[in-house]
Amino acid sequence: MNFKIIANIIGFLLILTGLFMLPGIFFSIYYGSNDIISLIICGAGTSAIGFFLWFFTRKRDTSQLNKRDSYLIVSLGWITMSAFGAIPFVVHGSIPSYTNAFFETVSGFTTTGASVLSDIESLPYGLLFWRSMTHWLGGMGIIVLSLAILPILGIGGMQLYSAEVAGPSKDKIHPRVRETAKRLWAIYFILTIAETILLLFGGMNLFDALCHSFGTLATGGFSTKNASIAFFNSPFIEYVIIIFMFLGGTNFTLHYFALHGNIKAYFKDEEFRFYFSFLGITILCTALFLFIYNSVGLEKSFRDSAFSIVSILSSTGFATVDYERWHPFFTLMFLFLLLFGACAGSTSGGVKMIRYYLLFKNSFYELKRLIHPQAVIPVRYNERAVTNDVISKIAAFVLLYLITFTVGSVILSFTGLEFSSAMGSVAACLGNIGPGLGSTGPVSNYSHVTDFGKWILSFIMLLGRLELFTLLIIFSPSFWKK
Amino acid sequence: MNFKIIANIIGFLLILTGLFMLPGIFFSIYYGSNDIISLIICGAGTSAIGFFLWFFTRKRDTSQLNKRDSYLIVSLGWITMSAFGAIPFVVHGSIPSYTNAFFETVSGFTTTGASVLSDIESLPYGLLFWRSMTHWLGGMGIIVLSLAILPILGIGGMQLYSAEVAGPSKDKIHPRVRETAKRLWAIYFILTIAETILLLFGGMNLFDALCHSFGTLATGGFSTKNASIAFFNSPFIEYVIIIFMFLGGTNFTLHYFALHGNIKAYFKDEEFRFYFSFLGITILCTALFLFIYNSVGLEKSFRDSAFSIVSILSSTGFATVDYERWHPFFTLMFLFLLLFGACAGSTSGGVKMIRYYLLFKNSFYELKRLIHPQAVIPVRYNERAVTNDVISKIAAFVLLYLITFTVGSVILSFTGLEFSSAMGSVAACLGNIGPGLGSTGPVSNYSHVTDFGKWILSFIMLLGRLELFTLLIIFSPSFWKK
Repeated sequence: MNFKIIANIIGFLLILTGLFMLPGIFFSIYYGSNDIISLIICGAGTSAIGFFLWFFTRKRDTSQLNKRDSYLIVSLGWITMSAFGAIPFVVHGSIPSYTNAFFETVSGFTTTGASVLSDIESLPYGLLFWRSMTHWLGGMGIIVLSLAILPILGIGGMQLYSAEVAGPSKDKIHPRVRETAKRLWAIYFILTIAETILLLFGGMNLFDALCHSFGTLATGGFSTKNASIAFFNSPFIEYVIIIFMFLGGTNFTLHYFALHGNIKAYFKDEEFRFYFSFLGITILCTALFLFIYNSVGLEKSFRDSAFSIVSILSSTGFATVDYERWHPFFTLMFLFLLLFGACAGSTSGGVKMIRYYLLFKNSFYELKRLIHPQAVIPVRYNERAVTNDVISKIAAFVLLYLITFTVGSVILSFTGLEFSSAMGSVAACLGNIGPGLGSTGPVSNYSHVTDFGKWILSFIMLLGRLELFTLLIIFSPSFWKK
Repeated sequence: MNFKIIANIIGFLLILTGLFMLPGIFFSIYYGSNDIISLIICGAGTSAIGFFLWFFTRKRDTSQLNKRDSYLIVSLGWITMSAFGAIPFVVHGSIPSYTNAFFETVSGFTTTGASVLSDIESLPYGLLFWRSMTHWLGGMGIIVLSLAILPILGIGGMQLYSAEVAGPSKDKIHPRVRETAKRLWAIYFILTIAETILLLFGGMNLFDALCHSFGTLATGGFSTKNASIAFFNSPFIEYVIIIFMFLGGTNFTLHYFALHGNIKAYFKDEEFRFYFSFLGITILCTALFLFIYNSVGLEKSFRDSAFSIVSILSSTGFATVDYERWHPFFTLMFLFLLLFGACAGSTSGGVKMIRYYLLFKNSFYELKRLIHPQAVIPVRYNERAVTNDVISKIAAFVLLYLITFTVGSVILSFTGLEFSSAMGSVAACLGNIGPGLGSTGPVSNYSHVTDFGKWILSFIMLLGRLELFTLLIIFSPSFWKK
């Protein structure tokens, strides 16, 4: 283990974390909020600690970075950023309990969007901006993680994407990550600006437009309003957010190709086609139900259905309506949707479409194999044959995901959450979605969960965000052996 | 497709079905029930139809039987036996609706034990006996299916067991099935007699002792009493049934070895060890909870916990207490237990221990593989390496199982069942367990489910019993191509 390099990079991340606490001060000054001093102290303090860590480890050779180091950097990165990112809320006093502040910040950096705040609007502007900023930074991290680091680490079948990453497939990790990250962050940045402009156009002020763009592209879900997107009561804003949640849930490599003129790349990708069709069918059926049985207008049926389903499936978690009140049946449907997630290589969380798609294809092909036992019938993905080795890796991931969901639900149920809330909150945190079901549903929050429950859910958010293995591997004794 | 042989075997099965309707008449005569004529007419009629089918197709060469034929025989066998087996209930008038009678009989033959009867005790003795007999016959069918037919067909990774079946692995299926079946039925028979004697000893009359033995060994769960096993209010009877439910959920090959003196075979089998430990830990934790929090006596805590958990996990479904009233948390725990199932090669239903065990091992080994990417680390089972091909087959099975559970729950929820009841009833029927949760829980029944819901659940019971693929393959167009 190259602890020096690891400490150096964590130091660098803390410098950034501290610096990014500061931009919100402009809004605090403009609106006259009382959080300016808290943000300056915490921002400067965090950056200073980061700087010392970075400075005393700066003579390091990043070409030495290997796979094990990357596991540690990724896990420790998310944890330390959350641990420091929570401090401003405590120092200012608007979230006095560190447990609550940590939950809120982990929820931010993992782009979950689960909140312990009953009255979001009581937070000062600078802290609200920092809260949304954690989403945006987390989103940047995930793009690198899912498109540059995970394919190299080969977690959960994600080596399927490795062909798209340039460079040699040695144990050296640094140069490729850097190159991929740069390309994709540019797109992330462009999309954020585009959404901000559209939201301004829809009538939001700059503060709300920026915060909601951060929350959308990162598929996070923190709003600046208690009523979430419903507050704005604007179909235009809702449609803009639907589209950008959808884009946030799409593989950023495809956006990259599209911006370079190859728009067809979207529909050439099997996962995207599956994502698109799955969403389309679910939205249309739900809209039809709302139109016929709940007598909602045609346009509003479609909009409510599209907003809620894209919000959950892309793992964003913004809300405009309480879907659990549509019909008891939707509680069940949304529980299952909570276990999905959108495309790999996006900012979304959860199991991801590609894994279910390949397992589903494998199940379907199994019927064919049983009929023709002599024939070799491999699962194909984007015209390449998927080996059984990859299928077994995906199965390993999905099972571990379901075990985490099961064990988590049982623990949360034990802390006092009722049946659907226990399952809903764990599914929503593990999938980095945010609102769950029942008492943690789209019109509620996590304030009533016990402290113990909040620590468990924080851990679950991290597990989900780091695709389970990245974090779990660190708890394995053989990881630490030479 | 050798339709002549298929028809011949189905004919033979119908002759048996008709004949087995008759033994109950002895109890009807003894207790003076009014179902004697109904049983004679239906029994004779079913056998006659079976005889004609058999007679006109009798010149057949069973050595021609191939894999495709076996799929059809297995599926059609279960369906036609259920279709005919339901008739006595309708003819007698005690279950006037054919939908209800079919549900009850499918539930019997699939050894599910889900009932539409609110007042079981109002049924005459002969019909009650026939109802329990469907369990016993179904159990015989499953033993052959799971230990002789499925390994040859290679469904859902079950070829792992094929090494234990003697004979050549050609496409000819008949001789081996016959040999294996004989050996295992002998054990099934011995265990049934043993339990009957013990239950008589515990104070049951012969009628109840036989019916409950049928229900236990087949891991079915039909009782002759409205209050199920709670009626007898006898710790001795409960312990006897706990033990035999456990044995019913154990691989019958191991019983075979044990009866030939090799008792160690049990603990040499990895699946059995997992089954035993899993049960042990769950029972002890639950008993401890009941003892500490619910202030139940120590012995009764253990007994209630062991009975309920063995009953659900072995997929029997007998009840002594309403576990949902222990604590809201148990509703969730039992929902997850409903998705388990006991050992492969037993009469139990569900996913089965071995599949979860191997997938779990695969997930765990995946961590090792990530740490040592150069090493080849195969999953091992009973000292043999399990190929990724088998893992992928198991993953195909488990995913299909979970999809069926999901889609089924959504449909049942749509018919009006609330959240936990919808999931519980589908999990309980798919796993061939019987009682689900909420309104279909251990102290309730399925009478209030709509007719449409009952047909769906009947199909789901068959799907679960036939390990999904055996039934689904018949709906595949390429199955019917030359």
